[in-house]
Amino acid sequence: MVGVGETRFSGPQDKTGIELFAEAATEAINESNLKPKDIKALFIGNALGDFAEGQGMMPPYLAENIGCFHVPANRYEGACASASMAVRDAFIGVASGFYDIVLAGGVERAATMGTALATRTFAMFSDAHYEYPAGTTFPAVFAMLAHLYAATYGLPLARLREQMARVTMQSYKHGSVNPKGQFYGKYGDISMEKILTSFVVCSPLTLHDCCPFSDGAAAVVLAAADVAKKLTKKPVSITGAGQASNGTLSNQDDYLPRIRARELSSQQAYKMAGVKPQDIDLCELHDCFSIASLIAAEGLGFFDYGKSGEAWEKGQADIGGKIAINPSGGLKSKGHPIGATGAGQVYEVTKQLRGEVEPERQVEGARIGMTDTLGGDGATLVNIILERGW
Amino acid sequence: MVGVGETRFSGPQDKTGIELFAEAATEAINESNLKPKDIKALFIGNALGDFAEGQGMMPPYLAENIGCFHVPANRYEGACASASMAVRDAFIGVASGFYDIVLAGGVERAATMGTALATRTFAMFSDAHYEYPAGTTFPAVFAMLAHLYAATYGLPLARLREQMARVTMQSYKHGSVNPKGQFYGKYGDISMEKILTSFVVCSPLTLHDCCPFSDGAAAVVLAAADVAKKLTKKPVSITGAGQASNGTLSNQDDYLPRIRARELSSQQAYKMAGVKPQDIDLCELHDCFSIASLIAAEGLGFFDYGKSGEAWEKGQADIGGKIAINPSGGLKSKGHPIGATGAGQVYEVTKQLRGEVEPERQVEGARIGMTDTLGGDGATLVNIILERGW
Repeated sequence: MVGVGETRFSGPQDKTGIELFAEAATEAINESNLKPKDIKALFIGNALGDFAEGQGMMPPYLAENIGCFHVPANRYEGACASASMAVRDAFIGVASGFYDIVLAGGVERAATMGTALATRTFAMFSDAHYEYPAGTTFPAVFAMLAHLYAATYGLPLARLREQMARVTMQSYKHGSVNPKGQFYGKYGDISMEKILTSFVVCSPLTLHDCCPFSDGAAAVVLAAADVAKKLTKKPVSITGAGQASNGTLSNQDDYLPRIRARELSSQQAYKMAGVKPQDIDLCELHDCFSIASLIAAEGLGFFDYGKSGEAWEKGQADIGGKIAINPSGGLKSKGHPIGATGAGQVYEVTKQLRGEVEPERQVEGARIGMTDTLGGDGATLVNIILERGW
Repeated sequence: MVGVGETRFSGPQDKTGIELFAEAATEAINESNLKPKDIKALFIGNALGDFAEGQGMMPPYLAENIGCFHVPANRYEGACASASMAVRDAFIGVASGFYDIVLAGGVERAATMGTALATRTFAMFSDAHYEYPAGTTFPAVFAMLAHLYAATYGLPLARLREQMARVTMQSYKHGSVNPKGQFYGKYGDISMEKILTSFVVCSPLTLHDCCPFSDGAAAVVLAAADVAKKLTKKPVSITGAGQASNGTLSNQDDYLPRIRARELSSQQAYKMAGVKPQDIDLCELHDCFSIASLIAAEGLGFFDYGKSGEAWEKGQADIGGKIAINPSGGLKSKGHPIGATGAGQVYEVTKQLRGEVEPERQVEGARIGMTDTLGGDGATLVNIILERGW
């Protein structure tokens, strides 16, 4: 990782996707001590560009706009995991020696669409033929998983709601001091009462259990080790990556509320990096809803099944605990610009491993970080492990 | 290439994208003497699934449906070049040793959308902010290129229209005997008069200058050479691949009607394969409009600039001529299921190199074939070179 860049994640704003991406990409390229002409390919996540602003196939236009003329420029669409797929394939392309320098990233204007339209449109990334017609927008999916989680692990729903509120409180605390986050300066001292009594989106999920839709872009420049050594003095390397898929959510019902693809994907990443869950110092994981954090932290092997709520309550999932989860604020506070989210996670982990984030949310001495991105309702899962050093 | 499969390309039909793709993929896997569980990843082109049937992120659902459980499954969206991008990246993934067996392909239900809606929706893959609002749907883009082509090379427009009609007549002739083609059994003996007097879509382009929208799917299985040698006795290998991008069409105006990205992409492919344009026996090129064939054949180096119309008239672009162009019938007759088209070209070239197509359209003794796929109005270009043997 020789350079990273990110716009602030935000609510509705006026820049086009091309303009937003250019801001993040230019920051990443400048930080890499490279020129745009040094970039050999662009791998870009974007899920909703055609719906949000009538722009399909955004990457060639992005490439031209940032001065990376004529390079291969691919759009990856894997719902929320789009940019993580792009980063993983950029990693494969560089690690295999096909490219020496690749810019990966993502961009989205999901907030500009408006929450109602974005929710409805975005539901197309679940199974459109059997599940969506049954009413399974994503809030409905995660509400059902919350009920199933409570039933499976014998937690009274009221108890689970408190645990979910703890997840939100921690995310909001860190996000409130992240200047790149959508809720920067907001909700840092929100009370459990306020969360529990905020309006019901889909029972048992209330407003504050749900991440916002966001506009934003993130970009990272990957270079082969021999090239990278000439470009950066703060080395961060990708040492493992995994990806797995699943089809319709209902077909993995023996497994639920665990997400099968996550366990397979993370095992690939751990194996490739030669590390174990307990070696990870921080993880940016896919907390599209508070319940999603609990499920993810267990699937990644950080806490026992049904126990991660307690871990949050005890501070084990916080900075200074067993593992620092979402010190950026995560999707719930930093924001969730769908196609950019995974690249934003890689941005955060890289900054953390370099020791470059705000002191209040810096994981001191972090050496190994991980990302976790979920596309759809369990259909696509990508994990990336990054380590300080070469 | 250890196995290829393709549905018939068609007008509107009732199968879902998942069902269509399963048909092509199952054919390809069976022909490969493999089981679905042997496939390590799916790389899939799809441009319009969210618009055509409300299904975004189709690949994980495709993977599950064909029994390739839990593999990484990526959606590539590069407009018409989507599947070619997928095949090229599958090639890179296999050639680099990261994967041993990958299934690449594409699927689209563009015909089911209806021509008016598909044309309007599909125009989002041109530049959405400056060019589309000026009226540049794709028929408009290629109509302008036709005018510019005539002016640049000093051809009276009436003369160019006759040359374009020759392109159509040749495509229709081959497509009429291709059972996988949309116009199978149709238009094989169409007259020039009929073409020239068919209704005007966008002057000077008439109906028969334009390809149809199509439903269809195609899939190919790529395996590392050592694996492939155990699976097939009719070896066809990818020996070169190139990809290049361009942004807005108007920004390459010094170059037009040549398409800059094509020249860069094909040079990459030729260089990697160590061959020259004159070594290519057949080429499936991107004839979304008849004028597009003339421009493509020149950009790929088969004929001099401004001279390819004459080549078509003299049979030099036909089977038995200098190079056999679009013996499948091409987009104009075989059909154009956007996100599947590039994989369909690879299917055709593979079948040709194996000597397995209908006798009337078999390029006898073909040894080297090429594909050419254009995404948008020059924004994405992919070329793949395939050779008989190892």
